[in-house]
Amino acid sequence: NDTTEVIFFPDSQVACIDYFTKVNGCVARDCKFSHKENSLSKLFMILSKSTKSMDVCVFVLTCTDLTDLLIQAHKRGVRVRVITDCEQVDATGSQVWRLRSEGVAVRTDESSFFMHHKFVVIDEKTLVNGSFNWTRQAITGNQENLLISDNSTLVKEYCKQFDHLWMLYDPQ
Amino acid sequence: NDTTEVIFFPDSQVACIDYFTKVNGCVARDCKFSHKENSLSKLFMILSKSTKSMDVCVFVLTCTDLTDLLIQAHKRGVRVRVITDCEQVDATGSQVWRLRSEGVAVRTDESSFFMHHKFVVIDEKTLVNGSFNWTRQAITGNQENLLISDNSTLVKEYCKQFDHLWMLYDPQ
Ligand SMILES: [Zn+2]
Ligand SMILES: [Zn+2]
Repeated sequence: NDTTEVIFFPDSQVACIDYFTKVNGCVARDCKFSHKENSLSKLFMILSKSTKSMDVCVFVLTCTDLTDLLIQAHKRGVRVRVITDCEQVDATGSQVWRLRSEGVAVRTDESSFFMHHKFVVIDEKTLVNGSFNWTRQAITGNQENLLISDNSTLVKEYCKQFDHLWMLYDPQ
Repeated sequence: NDTTEVIFFPDSQVACIDYFTKVNGCVARDCKFSHKENSLSKLFMILSKSTKSMDVCVFVLTCTDLTDLLIQAHKRGVRVRVITDCEQVDATGSQVWRLRSEGVAVRTDESSFFMHHKFVVIDEKTLVNGSFNWTRQAITGNQENLLISDNSTLVKEYCKQFDHLWMLYDPQ
């Protein structure tokens, strides 16, 4: 049977990325982040468990923690592809240049319209989709939702759309 | 079994609201809108078939056609409730005052953060959720998605969140 879950934001505290994703957990003496499960910790765990591929199609990408998970995945051999909006590449705090400098492939639209999606497909098996941009404000400020589903029909549709945009935004 | 569908934007043309939602269809002599099924026409049809309730929780609301469907639903006795972002109420083209003047209940957050959801629950039975704000730019400009589902577990979660925000934003 399909697994479907919804997570809502804002979280009252920012989850500790080390605690939820590192084998050794958090080694900070006085960690200022939360060790209690919340919406962000669920997202951390979903992203950190990728083994084959991560197709990220997100309008705004400024959150350093979530970007860290992409870079870590890339380093352990996961095929990470990122599509974002061209206007966002040079925005304050954009993580695009950091991703590129680490060797993660990032493509953008070339249009004054928005590449406004906020979805990720993990291992071509799990869809994460909703209103949530990858920003600190989305985590602890805004009202946001993410729907997590492994319905294969649904996942296939988003994979297909990702591939379509990936080719459309090929700079060659 | 659950029905799940995805629609992607942009559409190449704006769908004719009369053609897809009116009993008599489109009576315009030289209609400049599209009579071919597309993503917007699917959204029109989902919204126009509501019989009991429409819970709309959408960050930006400037599209007059989609607003018309809410007002028409309200007039035929559907309980229409709208939640949007307070900063958007006075934005150019906002349809909030039009909705209110027609008697549709609209509530907003009172925060500098965003009420950033873009979901609708129809008849407590169908969820429409994604990146899509109710703007003309989202229809024919941006890359956007809407996931449509009648998975009852999922729908219940969004209903519950809507009720939570509806009470939270009670101006009384
Ligand atoms: Zn910690
Ligand atoms: Zn027409």
